[in-house]
Amino acid sequence: MSLLSRVTMAPQGPEVSRLVYGVWRLLQDPQGAGVQRVLEKIQTCLDCGITTFDHADIYGGYQCEEVFGAALRAQPGLRQRMELVTKCGIMLVNPARPANRLKHYDYSRQHIIASVEQSLRQLATDYLDVLLLHRPSPLLDPSEVAEALQTLRTQGKVRHLGVSNFTPAQFDMLSSWLPFPLVTNQVELHPLRPEPFLDGTLDQCLRQRISPMAWSPLAGGRLLSGEGPAETRVREVLASLGQKHEALPEQILYAWLLKHPARILPVLGTNHTGRITSAVRALSLNLDTQDWFAVWSAAMGTEVP
Amino acid sequence: MSLLSRVTMAPQGPEVSRLVYGVWRLLQDPQGAGVQRVLEKIQTCLDCGITTFDHADIYGGYQCEEVFGAALRAQPGLRQRMELVTKCGIMLVNPARPANRLKHYDYSRQHIIASVEQSLRQLATDYLDVLLLHRPSPLLDPSEVAEALQTLRTQGKVRHLGVSNFTPAQFDMLSSWLPFPLVTNQVELHPLRPEPFLDGTLDQCLRQRISPMAWSPLAGGRLLSGEGPAETRVREVLASLGQKHEALPEQILYAWLLKHPARILPVLGTNHTGRITSAVRALSLNLDTQDWFAVWSAAMGTEVP
Amino acid sequence: MSLLSRVTMAPQGPEVSRLVYGVWRLLQDPQGAGVQRVLEKIQTCLDCGITTFDHADIYGGYQCEEVFGAALRAQPGLRQRMELVTKCGIMLVNPARPANRLKHYDYSRQHIIASVEQSLRQLATDYLDVLLLHRPSPLLDPSEVAEALQTLRTQGKVRHLGVSNFTPAQFDMLSSWLPFPLVTNQVELHPLRPEPFLDGTLDQCLRQRISPMAWSPLAGGRLLSGEGPAETRVREVLASLGQKHEALPEQILYAWLLKHPARILPVLGTNHTGRITSAVRALSLNLDTQDWFAVWSAAMGTEVP
Repeated sequence: MSLLSRVTMAPQGPEVSRLVYGVWRLLQDPQGAGVQRVLEKIQTCLDCGITTFDHADIYGGYQCEEVFGAALRAQPGLRQRMELVTKCGIMLVNPARPANRLKHYDYSRQHIIASVEQSLRQLATDYLDVLLLHRPSPLLDPSEVAEALQTLRTQGKVRHLGVSNFTPAQFDMLSSWLPFPLVTNQVELHPLRPEPFLDGTLDQCLRQRISPMAWSPLAGGRLLSGEGPAETRVREVLASLGQKHEALPEQILYAWLLKHPARILPVLGTNHTGRITSAVRALSLNLDTQDWFAVWSAAMGTEVP
Repeated sequence: MSLLSRVTMAPQGPEVSRLVYGVWRLLQDPQGAGVQRVLEKIQTCLDCGITTFDHADIYGGYQCEEVFGAALRAQPGLRQRMELVTKCGIMLVNPARPANRLKHYDYSRQHIIASVEQSLRQLATDYLDVLLLHRPSPLLDPSEVAEALQTLRTQGKVRHLGVSNFTPAQFDMLSSWLPFPLVTNQVELHPLRPEPFLDGTLDQCLRQRISPMAWSPLAGGRLLSGEGPAETRVREVLASLGQKHEALPEQILYAWLLKHPARILPVLGTNHTGRITSAVRALSLNLDTQDWFAVWSAAMGTEVP
Repeated sequence: MSLLSRVTMAPQGPEVSRLVYGVWRLLQDPQGAGVQRVLEKIQTCLDCGITTFDHADIYGGYQCEEVFGAALRAQPGLRQRMELVTKCGIMLVNPARPANRLKHYDYSRQHIIASVEQSLRQLATDYLDVLLLHRPSPLLDPSEVAEALQTLRTQGKVRHLGVSNFTPAQFDMLSSWLPFPLVTNQVELHPLRPEPFLDGTLDQCLRQRISPMAWSPLAGGRLLSGEGPAETRVREVLASLGQKHEALPEQILYAWLLKHPARILPVLGTNHTGRITSAVRALSLNLDTQDWFAVWSAAMGTEVP
């Protein structure tokens, strides 16, 4: 029996798991990135109900999708038990992309389609559950995005479109050009990066009835080991709440995000299977409102106004 | 005959007086907070047409509503001659609220209803004309607010809902979950706090055809006696306009807010009955456009671009 | 044959030329501002397809419109070959306006109408193609603007209304009071003033399907000769792209703006007829996406995130 609840990302959007597994560190696993190891982590996720996997074309220097895809090739039946999210649009200076003279963004119709087709090949799948535009571009042409997605959706290659790191204005602008709704905005979100709570980003998700995805929910580990004053203050509160709830600091942090009414989807980045399994307990923690504000106030360094 | 004009706060909103009397300093009156003294101030307000009274559950350490309510109990006929506004949602660390471990916000369905019922009891009334959510909460769940207000409005306990200190994005988000429009946003607004003129707050009020309420219209007195460079510059302009219009500095300040097309409702905080009466003259002052910009430019420290 | 393409400024808006000629420096021409010289510059513009002229009541200390109008009086046939844009609302302290005690804004119905009628007389024309509100005013009353424009449009004196230097919130607010759409927002826009790319201004134009106008597209010359680190970085990239495309730095800058999907309309300010003619080549330059980001990253001082 799965411990994890599921959630519909948007009114017309896909059903996903309440925690998402992100593969951006797939190549940094001390136990390697061989097929068996990748399968082991996938199986760990699926066993505890984490069925949604977050990719990007660029992760691992354009290699993570392929490494993950090798596992799906080895066990093709896994694909139908999971949802795949990937991203496009960032153009890195990288040996794999010799035409890139400087880091930039490309959301031309041609590039979006080519990037998706490459992702499908590497991931060994026929379709993406969700494609995300990885970062807003000051040169983004919404008509090109609309055309590319029209093609990709008609072909069945992309089921849903979302964005990542978009401001509310950028989200609204793009939406106004699309004949379908965007299903998510994946943003950096944790107690040391509270801006989305205040700048309209989460308000927009609530208004649109979409679930935001939270990348780096542990601030890339800084919240667990960083030395700065904010890290230290938050960590003290996490320790105290950990005692109260008999939980690990990262479980408290996930629960802190999960408590928000926007139905935030934290993206886990760990390579430790034990920590994947352990994260699931966050869903059964019941932080009360004052617990939540204890973390918030520690992050702010002051009580609320 | 009343000197004060009245205004409809929102298209479907309540009719209120153009100046509002705020009770947050009710317990600081040098002449005390006995029933007779409170009645004297209420009568002074009503005599000059100030019929709208602004409360909050937390004012005076959760005591102002009760002190005011004692006066209404003594003269129950007063209630039908006034509009009562109060607020909920801030949870203070206070002997009266032993469960509060740290300052936080609570906009759960349960708390909103309990807070309103407590306010009704303390104010000795059956209904609130307007309930305001006192501050935006990063954890505000709009569905809880919608449910609570559905109940309270059906029961006749709250006639209208507004907010206080909300950003435009927070206002829009909450509005999108309510089956009725918000009727106001009460914000800090005076020449030393001009942000709402520039950051979309007043633009939103104009777009929604609602009257904002202005708390601390005299900057808590700083504009009349503060020593900083901005205070000094503004005070010099107020003195000069005072001579021109034969008016007191605070009358000029109220008139400055009243001149704005958003139909700002200044909330007076004085305990001096003479100053209540005197404030009313602000409505008959005719600041011209250049008078208005003289105050604005003094506040900014520079002419307009 | 005209080299310049034309563009519809807004769905119901006027057709204008892709580059606009701005007259704010008309009186600073080393060759003078006599009728023959002005006619020479107008003819140069028209000959290369620049048919849209950008004025303001205040340019040249309230004199530019009259100087330009003298040329139209000398050759009345020119009027039907061009579009005239002018602005109102800024009140300068100036011998020509003795009633102005301090710089301020006036968007009263009375002033807007008087200002337009004055502009029509000075420009020797019966109508303006576009009237712009020159700057947002913290005191702007949208009902006054709506009334004034109702009158002016009914009389045929103003065909379209736009704004200048407005934030998205100010634009939306005013729009909500008008029975017709705003056709443009003219903003300062160049690599050293990239805010409109990021703060929702251009997103709003794309959402509304309107073309923004870009004032000071060369940063008033700073981009070509400024000594600051950003200017220097951008200029190095312009030199490199100039070599690649066999183009002048200012042609690269215009092409950089023209490449944006919002269909930005750069406003040229030069008094050199050679530079007017030369600017037109910007439309046939094909900057690629990486060229565009090379300028962007030089302006930012860092690669994109």
